[in-house]
Amino acid sequence: MRVLGIDPGLGNLGWGIIDVDGARLSHVGNGVCKSTGSDLGARLLVLFDQLCAVIAQHSPDTAAVEQTFVNKDGAGTLKLGQARGIAMLAPARAGLSVGEYYPNAVKKAVVGVGHADKRQVLHMVQLQLPGAKITGPDAADALAIAICHAHHCQSASRLTDALARAETTRSAEAAR
Amino acid sequence: MRVLGIDPGLGNLGWGIIDVDGARLSHVGNGVCKSTGSDLGARLLVLFDQLCAVIAQHSPDTAAVEQTFVNKDGAGTLKLGQARGIAMLAPARAGLSVGEYYPNAVKKAVVGVGHADKRQVLHMVQLQLPGAKITGPDAADALAIAICHAHHCQSASRLTDALARAETTRSAEAAR
Repeated sequence: MRVLGIDPGLGNLGWGIIDVDGARLSHVGNGVCKSTGSDLGARLLVLFDQLCAVIAQHSPDTAAVEQTFVNKDGAGTLKLGQARGIAMLAPARAGLSVGEYYPNAVKKAVVGVGHADKRQVLHMVQLQLPGAKITGPDAADALAIAICHAHHCQSASRLTDALARAETTRSAEAAR
Repeated sequence: MRVLGIDPGLGNLGWGIIDVDGARLSHVGNGVCKSTGSDLGARLLVLFDQLCAVIAQHSPDTAAVEQTFVNKDGAGTLKLGQARGIAMLAPARAGLSVGEYYPNAVKKAVVGVGHADKRQVLHMVQLQLPGAKITGPDAADALAIAICHAHHCQSASRLTDALARAETTRSAEAAR
């Protein structure tokens, strides 16, 4: 399974892609989509086109976006929301399911605690994806989101398997 | 000139289109794009597809989106921001310039004062676009945004004309 993680932002939108095979994770790619200038429509289009190109190039199976907001002021949160809308739309438009995770959940999945700082996240992402050349903190966060989503999908799939096995056992017992 | 106005929202995204010929405004269409459910990516995709269909059907020349934010809580503002990102992206992707106006500027352009209530806006939009069947308050707001953008574009164009005339006069005087 190939997982795309996205750390949304209007100026810098981080992305990271990993392959997941059982418990084994491997790095596929990471980077940052950038936009500048005062024309918001044009900036969102630039981010959208860059993200669609990443998806077309790497063909992920599923995606996840960080669920975060700047609470200090409405204007900053609105700006982040706009970039986040693009970050959700691009994978949805490519037919991918899009998971959402709070920053604490991402940190807990990658570092083991919910209140880790950026350096710890970067360090643990590097450890879990040996050899990956990480573009910067936004790309590291995006890879962390992908790792969190991979864990979540595996837990969900193990649960589905366990339920299916229980169902099979029940049916076999009923048939006896 | 054909103008598309958009009142962004995740559940209800209003749109309104008018034709502008000098001081004459005429109604082209209005409606509300809707999305429901808990899958945010899917909701944003539904809004995007509906808005792209409206643009493809009516071929506006320019667009404008209301610049507003709910200041009461970060989660609400983030939600609005995501819908607003889609509202800006759809016209930008169709090659349109996208204007942004604060609610007060829209009310001032349509009602004459910046603190008008929703009923006044609806009433004045109806007066300025006689015969228009308006879908609801979100569509009325979208038509008001389109009217505001039309006024703004006309002022900008009159200013450009005046500057060009002044330049011609200056050149003619210099040549004498």
